[in-house]
Amino acid sequence: MSILIKDSLIVTQNEKREIKKGDVYVEDNLISEIGKVNVEAEYKFEGKNIAVMPGLINTHNHVPMTFMRGIADDVDLFEFLERVWKVEEGMTKEDIYRGSIMGIEEMLRTGTTTFVDMYSYEDEVAKAVKEKGIRGFLGWAVVDEELTTQGGTPVGNAEEFIKEYRGDDLVTPLIAPHAVYTCGEETLLKAKEVAEKYDALMTIHISETRKEVYDHRKKTGMRPAEWLDKIGFLSNRVIGAHMVWLTLREIKLLSERGVIASHNPTSNMKLGNGGSMPLVEMLQNGMNVTLGTDSVVSNNNLDMFEVMKFAALLHKNERWDPKATNAQMILDFATVNAAKALGLNAGSVEEGKLADLVIIDGNEPNAKPFKKENLVSNIVYSLNGLNVAATIVDGKIRYGEEKFS
Amino acid sequence: MSILIKDSLIVTQNEKREIKKGDVYVEDNLISEIGKVNVEAEYKFEGKNIAVMPGLINTHNHVPMTFMRGIADDVDLFEFLERVWKVEEGMTKEDIYRGSIMGIEEMLRTGTTTFVDMYSYEDEVAKAVKEKGIRGFLGWAVVDEELTTQGGTPVGNAEEFIKEYRGDDLVTPLIAPHAVYTCGEETLLKAKEVAEKYDALMTIHISETRKEVYDHRKKTGMRPAEWLDKIGFLSNRVIGAHMVWLTLREIKLLSERGVIASHNPTSNMKLGNGGSMPLVEMLQNGMNVTLGTDSVVSNNNLDMFEVMKFAALLHKNERWDPKATNAQMILDFATVNAAKALGLNAGSVEEGKLADLVIIDGNEPNAKPFKKENLVSNIVYSLNGLNVAATIVDGKIRYGEEKFS
Repeated sequence: MSILIKDSLIVTQNEKREIKKGDVYVEDNLISEIGKVNVEAEYKFEGKNIAVMPGLINTHNHVPMTFMRGIADDVDLFEFLERVWKVEEGMTKEDIYRGSIMGIEEMLRTGTTTFVDMYSYEDEVAKAVKEKGIRGFLGWAVVDEELTTQGGTPVGNAEEFIKEYRGDDLVTPLIAPHAVYTCGEETLLKAKEVAEKYDALMTIHISETRKEVYDHRKKTGMRPAEWLDKIGFLSNRVIGAHMVWLTLREIKLLSERGVIASHNPTSNMKLGNGGSMPLVEMLQNGMNVTLGTDSVVSNNNLDMFEVMKFAALLHKNERWDPKATNAQMILDFATVNAAKALGLNAGSVEEGKLADLVIIDGNEPNAKPFKKENLVSNIVYSLNGLNVAATIVDGKIRYGEEKFS
Repeated sequence: MSILIKDSLIVTQNEKREIKKGDVYVEDNLISEIGKVNVEAEYKFEGKNIAVMPGLINTHNHVPMTFMRGIADDVDLFEFLERVWKVEEGMTKEDIYRGSIMGIEEMLRTGTTTFVDMYSYEDEVAKAVKEKGIRGFLGWAVVDEELTTQGGTPVGNAEEFIKEYRGDDLVTPLIAPHAVYTCGEETLLKAKEVAEKYDALMTIHISETRKEVYDHRKKTGMRPAEWLDKIGFLSNRVIGAHMVWLTLREIKLLSERGVIASHNPTSNMKLGNGGSMPLVEMLQNGMNVTLGTDSVVSNNNLDMFEVMKFAALLHKNERWDPKATNAQMILDFATVNAAKALGLNAGSVEEGKLADLVIIDGNEPNAKPFKKENLVSNIVYSLNGLNVAATIVDGKIRYGEEKFS
């Protein structure tokens, strides 16, 4: 497939963070040329006031839960979990597949081209990923054996899943130990062994709530991140989701180990987790910060544009300081930072990069004035996922095909 | 004009907060029938998965500034104001009109049917309101005479504006003393006199920043709300915008006087005003709370759906309590509470109410599953202004006409 996007503003996210004006030409699954491109392409996108930007990368989701939207609002975490578990008790593999289709359709509609997932039966999610053509870093959830009714062992099932999907063009399998309160040392180290064996990433919830930290200290004398380091779990293979309740000592430790942060501001605020992820200190200590939605049960959508605005504003508010974040920093979290974390040749609009692209329609009123000077500001602070006119993943149009000639 | 909306979920916002299923029939500028309606109408809206809800009411805006979107992000309030003032120095009446047209188009696109505004030369805003057919409660901004280069006196100009527009079907003029740091006692009392003479509302910024409170205490020995009460300014004619930095004593005072709160969570967070409006205490003390965007320079859009989500999540986060707010409460702020504050026969979908209505397209992925049970949750937590399929103001279709047959 070849695609030509004409006369567009281009949010390159290259090293200089340039905004260019011109055409973007995609051949097969790569961005092959940027500038003034005069070729015939199979698909051509033309329009007044359009912008091309890198596809957004969502580093924390439980996509099968999308069909549960709205089931557990405005309640404390205990009741939240009760309601979710009640639905999950009766859940079939077909439900997992269908929930994943719903969530993937929403992500493609709203400009996400890659997502990291954590759930049971990621083979069903993988089916949905392949069918819809999004890029999925799919983490088979692992808990201690006695906590699951799944056949086989959790780590064994995860390993089977990794073996089945490694090398796939869209699915990158990973292993996802759930959290310190559901995984003991043995489970965590087994997961790590599998990750190393297959050179796979891991993702885990870390210090999302005060209760988690309190309980873990009571049990082990250590806070979750300290303990994870002590047992040898932490490395640059680990994407830590949430990390709301960290000490400065833990931040330094996580940074030294190369752990990647998946910041989920909307979910954290909605659940009233309290405080907020110590973003400023994490950046000061050189951590790689990325953004995630979490599931729609806590978010309640999968719109990464909205997550960017929440991330930016949460920390300005928390610090009483409008300079605590800025639009470019936040856009980096959702593009180049996340691509780097995942080892993905994407996150910027540059020749030779994977063609994971989003086309913005600048004709909606919330995009005006539409110009180079406020484009990054508009992306982070004014637009939302429904401003997306088309989404391209791996060189294929996955949303908005009817708008191409 | 007559309009028939068929087979829709109806978010009535009636006293029981019922969600009904049926048709809504609009004749002239009123909702004339709800239920099973078999009549021929000039305009008919049919579709699978649609919902009708009351038009949203934005109680704080400076709509002419819409053309400045993105000019002052991520800077402290001092630099923010410098940048805005620099633009305003060279601003013409034509700019005010054009900025207003931009902002009104955005509001109609995103489901706002009524807005409260504060700016100089509201006659230009009124022209735009009449042209576009939105409902505007337009407050001519008043500051001390020595602070303005406008011809005439600020209060005199405001009075002329009120005389010109009172009784208009779409424009309701009001008077808008800017704040305690720009209006002395004499100006405020003159403004109050004009408001009483013409039975008009007033709107004023109250305690937006710590600096405002600090400076006013230094000058008068009193906090802004206390001082406004002492000089006799406060009453149920007053819409107080922001009110971030209030003591409990002030809340009780404001409540006793019947002052209406316009909460602007997105703007407050973006400017890093610090803390947050003491919503829980204001509600406990019986204050009428409504929602506003503030101008796009601080918001950066005019999407009241987004403001609802920010309002809900800000207080859950601030209180470490997911129960601090709930979806129904927040939807009330933007509909029935605001209509009551403005004395407007709107804010709910009931027979005999003004036909200020929004039609939601439930076919976008972020609205699924689309059903009665999670509809209010979706409106507050998942949808955004671009989910609006059509907006009706005063019985006329002001956005989405092409979608009617």
